[in-house]
Amino acid sequence: MNAPLAQRIPFPPGLRDTLAAMLGERFTTAAAPCGHHGHDESHFPDAVPDAVAFPESTEEVSAIVRACAAHGVPLIPFGAGSSLEGHVLAVRGGLSMDFTRMNRVLAVNVEDLDCRVEPGVTRKQLNAVLHGSGLFFPIDPGADASLGGMCATRASGTNAVRYGTMREVVLGLTVVLADGSVIRTGGRARKSSAGYDLTRLFVGSEGTLGIMTEITLRLSPVPEAVAAAVCAFPTVDDAVQTVIQTIQMGVPIARIELLDAMMVRATNAYSKTTLREAPMLFFEFHGSPASVKEQAQTVQELAAGNGGLDFEWAEQPEDRSRLWAARHSALFATIALRPGARALTTDVCVPISCLADCIAATEQDLATTGLVRTIVGHVGDGNFHVVLLVDPEDEDEIERAEAASRRIVQHALDMGGTCTGEHGIGIGKQDFLVAEHGPAVDVMRTIKRALDPANLLNPGKVVPGL
Amino acid sequence: MNAPLAQRIPFPPGLRDTLAAMLGERFTTAAAPCGHHGHDESHFPDAVPDAVAFPESTEEVSAIVRACAAHGVPLIPFGAGSSLEGHVLAVRGGLSMDFTRMNRVLAVNVEDLDCRVEPGVTRKQLNAVLHGSGLFFPIDPGADASLGGMCATRASGTNAVRYGTMREVVLGLTVVLADGSVIRTGGRARKSSAGYDLTRLFVGSEGTLGIMTEITLRLSPVPEAVAAAVCAFPTVDDAVQTVIQTIQMGVPIARIELLDAMMVRATNAYSKTTLREAPMLFFEFHGSPASVKEQAQTVQELAAGNGGLDFEWAEQPEDRSRLWAARHSALFATIALRPGARALTTDVCVPISCLADCIAATEQDLATTGLVRTIVGHVGDGNFHVVLLVDPEDEDEIERAEAASRRIVQHALDMGGTCTGEHGIGIGKQDFLVAEHGPAVDVMRTIKRALDPANLLNPGKVVPGL
Repeated sequence: MNAPLAQRIPFPPGLRDTLAAMLGERFTTAAAPCGHHGHDESHFPDAVPDAVAFPESTEEVSAIVRACAAHGVPLIPFGAGSSLEGHVLAVRGGLSMDFTRMNRVLAVNVEDLDCRVEPGVTRKQLNAVLHGSGLFFPIDPGADASLGGMCATRASGTNAVRYGTMREVVLGLTVVLADGSVIRTGGRARKSSAGYDLTRLFVGSEGTLGIMTEITLRLSPVPEAVAAAVCAFPTVDDAVQTVIQTIQMGVPIARIELLDAMMVRATNAYSKTTLREAPMLFFEFHGSPASVKEQAQTVQELAAGNGGLDFEWAEQPEDRSRLWAARHSALFATIALRPGARALTTDVCVPISCLADCIAATEQDLATTGLVRTIVGHVGDGNFHVVLLVDPEDEDEIERAEAASRRIVQHALDMGGTCTGEHGIGIGKQDFLVAEHGPAVDVMRTIKRALDPANLLNPGKVVPGL
Repeated sequence: MNAPLAQRIPFPPGLRDTLAAMLGERFTTAAAPCGHHGHDESHFPDAVPDAVAFPESTEEVSAIVRACAAHGVPLIPFGAGSSLEGHVLAVRGGLSMDFTRMNRVLAVNVEDLDCRVEPGVTRKQLNAVLHGSGLFFPIDPGADASLGGMCATRASGTNAVRYGTMREVVLGLTVVLADGSVIRTGGRARKSSAGYDLTRLFVGSEGTLGIMTEITLRLSPVPEAVAAAVCAFPTVDDAVQTVIQTIQMGVPIARIELLDAMMVRATNAYSKTTLREAPMLFFEFHGSPASVKEQAQTVQELAAGNGGLDFEWAEQPEDRSRLWAARHSALFATIALRPGARALTTDVCVPISCLADCIAATEQDLATTGLVRTIVGHVGDGNFHVVLLVDPEDEDEIERAEAASRRIVQHALDMGGTCTGEHGIGIGKQDFLVAEHGPAVDVMRTIKRALDPANLLNPGKVVPGL
């Protein structure tokens, strides 16, 4: 773990008074809310902020940033707290800015397939608002994350193989900069060549370059037909070969997810499913009825060629929902294999041709570690997660898990992959960022220093040494 | 026109000697090659560089950048010279860096649907190399532009409605920075959350932040079936309504292009076609045979509902090629309406729901100007071009055309659109950049200053006041 040592300054009484006067009960230094904002779903130790603010508008965010800047106090944006990489941990103390109260869907433009939201809106909340409009928001990381957090980490998930990631669907942003000034990036046109792509610079910047206060998102038409199925395979490799062939044939599949046998066992126990305990793919097909039929037939043939058993179809919408709810519970299902454990989750993503080798090398390596673990992944993108269970009190086990994680990342980098497909760098992967990008990290540092010279926006995240 | 006044310094003899020693005949200060590198396809006056270099490797580009930096001499990357916004004009003098000799396709990974190229490779050259591989490179701006230039301007074109723009297909870059150091951004994984998205920052930066020397691109499978057709409509509005309905229904159409009646007349004259001289849509459908049939049927029904005549199908591959060659000759066909004229081309892009109003307002406005012009566009993206013909000797006419262009942009911005969908800012649209993005332009300027403090990389482009 390479979390920087805490370099905390005491919370200035003048700032406390300013924020209390500005926000009333929406500002607190009480232990319980500060504690709640000091941890996430990662395995990193808690790092509690000194205070929490609950802004309700861009103007308030701007005023809070100005006040914190005047006192040199760090700011950490907080969405749903579902980060797996310690993004919300207040490793230098400071103010946690909770976006729960900025959770309005500001506009839905059905005819343009876009919407504008505040960052505290969660993906499920947005889809509830869109219900009946003929549109949906496809990015689905499993957790009911906030859209601000999903922007900040460049999130993706099960639908990304067809619908892209947050990189593709964010059209524009309102951002409060480190000095409190407010800018708008991008716009509602589907494409633009007007200047530097600041939208994409802020997406994935993990709150370190600016604080997003409005997000314009591209939506997708609800497909006319949807079909979901599962298919068991003799080995993980057979399943992965099916994925590779599906992608290489250009089948516009909406979801294609791998679970290893241990993950299926954990899912059965946790989600009361009765899936065969074997390596398995979960599929979903979107399109016109004819197109869905055609896609499904192609993939069934590929699966059969790799020893796959018959597809089991989730015919009804409720069956589909149950299936994907089970898939989305993978993290908690794994943790339930060993009560009291915390999860260290890897997130490598490799070129699709290397996926089988990468997973095989990873499995072989893990077999020697004795760690309880599952493998689950968005394999259509070449992205998979190993969930390693650790006893949070057992330093030796944590070290073994972290060493295994380092080796998994190294395998992936050696194959031209990335250390993180969708979870972000946070506090735990800064060394990997350097291993992956080398001198390009110096450019990231130059940009961070230019936009946040006092290093107050989520300090200690993404760029090492800041 | 807001091209900055030339602030030229004499080309330093010491630099000339260094580059001549380094590059031999691949460095020149001769009038003819300098003149050739001092203009593009825009209507802006020539601005001739003091010298031209023809590097052959990243290492040479780095060495040239270091040498120019040591002498404070500007550098202008030059691809195919097909810019419509003056990107290659040496408005502050300096060295034009011609990438003609860096035109190797370095790798094609069929199984991963990607490739790595040098920036001088043109899109047609790449597709020739890919012929028979089952893959193609879909981004098609019409001109046989270099891929480096297409990256630099975030180009798109006829296929973008389905396949995206250079923003979506560039996976990674090798970039020489202003100090001559070399970085690699992105990678071959389909997605990544590893740090700031430098790839997207350089794509569209028009050579002002760094010089690309290698580009990793995502490729697409050649569709199993392709069908193309044209359809004439009573009015432009009828055609545009068909487009809007097609996009709103989520039809995965590959190309949907508008030509107004004058554009069709110009095309018939220039490309020897016999199209009906009426507002017209050009379509192309990609997919499985069943999917293509389904898409075509849907769009035919929509067209019929808007008064469209019967589809005329281009059945054979040669017919399709002729059709798209005619479409791609739009600029030259328009210029041929008035020999000796130069073209001022607008490039607005608006949310699809505003497209009909935007084009109607544009047509109404232009009717009062007396200018010869055509309208042609990638309307599936909400992007259209007005090609205004001007006598390059007639300052009054140029001023009238520029005033009309300003009004067209203002219409588009008022509707939430952008001043440029695909051509870039260059020297002519810097005021529009400010009108569109306001204070966000200050962030662009901050980034430019941080990455190129001496302002030597394509100075006078994109960011006003630099």
